[in-house]
Amino acid sequence: MDLPQLNYRHVVNGEELVIAIAQDQETGEVLMVAYMNCEAFKKTVETGKAHYWSTSRSQLWLKGESSGHIQEVSEIFTDCDQDAVLLKVKQIGAACHEGYYSCFFRKISDENGFKLKIVRKKVFTPEKVYGDK
Amino acid sequence: MDLPQLNYRHVVNGEELVIAIAQDQETGEVLMVAYMNCEAFKKTVETGKAHYWSTSRSQLWLKGESSGHIQEVSEIFTDCDQDAVLLKVKQIGAACHEGYYSCFFRKISDENGFKLKIVRKKVFTPEKVYGDK
Repeated sequence: MDLPQLNYRHVVNGEELVIAIAQDQETGEVLMVAYMNCEAFKKTVETGKAHYWSTSRSQLWLKGESSGHIQEVSEIFTDCDQDAVLLKVKQIGAACHEGYYSCFFRKISDENGFKLKIVRKKVFTPEKVYGDK
Repeated sequence: MDLPQLNYRHVVNGEELVIAIAQDQETGEVLMVAYMNCEAFKKTVETGKAHYWSTSRSQLWLKGESSGHIQEVSEIFTDCDQDAVLLKVKQIGAACHEGYYSCFFRKISDENGFKLKIVRKKVFTPEKVYGDK
């Protein structure tokens, strides 16, 4: 497969990466941001399922591999510098391992001196999906 | 100002950063992704105008400083790991220095073997805004 050459300029632990943003294809809600190496990008295009590079585990990561909460990718955009991609996805289940549909569930509120406030509701119970780890 | 502590775990040239995504507050269009250091985050909250950390110039960067294309920030969300922020913004002019409203103006098209295709129209002429550099 002859994929476009991206600019894998974000280096974490020696791995060359692009930033990858997942956005709900229907609502436009931003779900999460992570990294992809070349292999993750290729797997995403090939399979239509979002793959990332886990910088904490230093390995390829099929999103939803353990939870079943996969992301079906309908469109992929690249940015001007080619060092970031935007995925339009159908999110199965929820994106966040903490049980929220989007990872961006906290908002800075100036009500109490710029504290963070949880502004979304959980859509699943993490312990039931991931086990009591 | 007592700002929430973020996880500045993305290190570029020794600078500790969070990923920052800007999203159009009206349409939900993702406009760009960049980094913020602690100072950029503080300036953004203080002034209501998006500030980033330019990793190419290694300096604080008020978005729109030279072009006038500033981003007025209405809401700031943080993600589960606190290492990324999502800004809901009113974009003055356009986000991309190449003349497009969003930096994500190229799409992977499988029509011609997964080539990139420009799928947006320019909204300004870069040479007129930035000079003929």
